[in-house]
Amino acid sequence: MKFKTEIKVIDGNPDLSFLLSENKKLFVTDENIFALKSLEKFFKNFSVLNKINSGNTQASLYSNKNNALIVIPAGEKYKTIDTVLAIIKAALAFSLTRKDIFTAIGGGVITDLTAFASSIYKRGAKVEFVSTTLLGMCDAAIGGKTGCDFEDYKNIAGTFFPADRLYVFPEFVKSLSDKEYISGLAEVIKTALLFDKKLFNLLETQKEKVLSRDSEVIYKMISLCVKAKTKIVKKDLTEKKERMLLNLGHTFGHALESRAGLGVLTHGECVAWGTCRALDLSQKLGLCSYDYFERVKKVSASYGYETDVVHKAFTDSKAILETMKNDKKNSSSKIRVILQRGLCKNIITEIEDEKILEALI
Amino acid sequence: MKFKTEIKVIDGNPDLSFLLSENKKLFVTDENIFALKSLEKFFKNFSVLNKINSGNTQASLYSNKNNALIVIPAGEKYKTIDTVLAIIKAALAFSLTRKDIFTAIGGGVITDLTAFASSIYKRGAKVEFVSTTLLGMCDAAIGGKTGCDFEDYKNIAGTFFPADRLYVFPEFVKSLSDKEYISGLAEVIKTALLFDKKLFNLLETQKEKVLSRDSEVIYKMISLCVKAKTKIVKKDLTEKKERMLLNLGHTFGHALESRAGLGVLTHGECVAWGTCRALDLSQKLGLCSYDYFERVKKVSASYGYETDVVHKAFTDSKAILETMKNDKKNSSSKIRVILQRGLCKNIITEIEDEKILEALI
Repeated sequence: MKFKTEIKVIDGNPDLSFLLSENKKLFVTDENIFALKSLEKFFKNFSVLNKINSGNTQASLYSNKNNALIVIPAGEKYKTIDTVLAIIKAALAFSLTRKDIFTAIGGGVITDLTAFASSIYKRGAKVEFVSTTLLGMCDAAIGGKTGCDFEDYKNIAGTFFPADRLYVFPEFVKSLSDKEYISGLAEVIKTALLFDKKLFNLLETQKEKVLSRDSEVIYKMISLCVKAKTKIVKKDLTEKKERMLLNLGHTFGHALESRAGLGVLTHGECVAWGTCRALDLSQKLGLCSYDYFERVKKVSASYGYETDVVHKAFTDSKAILETMKNDKKNSSSKIRVILQRGLCKNIITEIEDEKILEALI
Repeated sequence: MKFKTEIKVIDGNPDLSFLLSENKKLFVTDENIFALKSLEKFFKNFSVLNKINSGNTQASLYSNKNNALIVIPAGEKYKTIDTVLAIIKAALAFSLTRKDIFTAIGGGVITDLTAFASSIYKRGAKVEFVSTTLLGMCDAAIGGKTGCDFEDYKNIAGTFFPADRLYVFPEFVKSLSDKEYISGLAEVIKTALLFDKKLFNLLETQKEKVLSRDSEVIYKMISLCVKAKTKIVKKDLTEKKERMLLNLGHTFGHALESRAGLGVLTHGECVAWGTCRALDLSQKLGLCSYDYFERVKKVSASYGYETDVVHKAFTDSKAILETMKNDKKNSSSKIRVILQRGLCKNIITEIEDEKILEALI
């Protein structure tokens, strides 16, 4: 399977009217996006039709000539098989064929769910995304990973199914809460460290404009992230080699996220903290300089992330190590981590528990 | 995506003990196969563990060191999302990774469900098949189509996900009921007409041995079908071109199957009848000779299939035409059918309603 998403980064206020089509289409969004002032005009094109009940998911169905719209409840809580089936029910109600298009408008939850539903609908229909979050634009919406949660497992069911098209409107990030925006920034920092010195320089030198979401700066920042992520998933869509690099900070971060209790810390907070741990480990192993580690810590801290070795939200380092050992990405008894020799000099390796622990205390 | 299934056709009594593994594996079968005398020894390797409840599907879980076995209720009725999730629950209970193997032992329902579950488990684990029905060995288990039914729709959710390995034991067909065996034979006849003169000759000249399931003849017959099906799906896995040929008799057949009421006629009976209709249409359009049409009708009738233009199970030709128009494989307002100029001379085309109706009255 190949990554073949056509991506457009579009400046200015999001006008989605060009997405309405004479051909059949199913739009999928959530209640938060549906309520956005900036999309009021677009959603006014649709009239209420009825409700769709699928297990614990209650969705609303709207229509406009040949186009339908399903609005699902917002949040990770609804990233379930029930919601995937609600989307499929909507597609069946409108007799979509496998040549028709599912259009997701939203963040990672909506794009993951819609692409998963589309990938299994009649063994694979078409899907396109309008990403509305910083995390989505820079990471989740690029690379073909689809899925939903099941029981207590995150993204345990899913497919690799790249979207046909992705529309990125950087202006959408202005509608995000500070918490959501900052959470997304952690993946931007990670991307800069891995692949793009210019982007890292932007983050180091233009903090104020990044934080105030200056139009020019966010356009630049998001465009660079899109480019970097696209390059890596084109090389290795199914995460056999290079794509693993994108897990920088994630093995540490996921462990903290799950130990702190899901929902207590944002994904971004944990990734930023985990990235510092990966670089602390790198310098302790003599792979990178202490100065480089300090430089990364300084940038992270400047965006408000906790960078101290023992995170205040969960202080038991041994427990974090235990959780890291259960990560689904390990292939042997050692823990797989991404380390660095310096900016954009990346290493995929497996490390003994004792060494990992040294970077956690 | 490419078709990459390694297929072994194995003579003699099925001994599945070689499938037990030191590595983690999840076997999936149904209650009928689990009760087969010929597999008693194999299934004795497993001990009862517990029950898995998933919606309307109640399955039993067994284990044997690193290998687990889930036994699901038999029949199309259980070809549901609930059963797919039951299989995923079993895989999670045994902490299978995406490098571990799901092994389906059964007919088309079991192989379709297991491959679907495997294709979405952690975005794609490994899957292998032991096919136990004639229809499975010659058709369903080869070609990567996975899926389950949803609401009133057959195979509406699914993926393209070829098995890593397929083991074909022709001897299994001796355990099938006459009804099931004859149903499978219709796809054998279809395959012969499309791709293999030698196979058609075997069906014409060795009817008694085919019907008595003579070991040598069924081995030959199944091997030729496996070869023909493999060749076509290697060329066109996702049914964009040549693979459509496999629908010979199916547009007519599906319409009859659905109009007669699901479960009233076997899939094979309908396909055999539909194949005769496709050839009647071919000769009426001057594409093939009347003699060829008669020759095919004679062979079909010799295996007990209804070949008359008006099938006794459903006599309203116009209603059949209406159902054909709703077939998901049509791309325009015309009906797509597979026709022939003669044995192994195939045509994919679209035909006006009036012409189709002429072959139905």
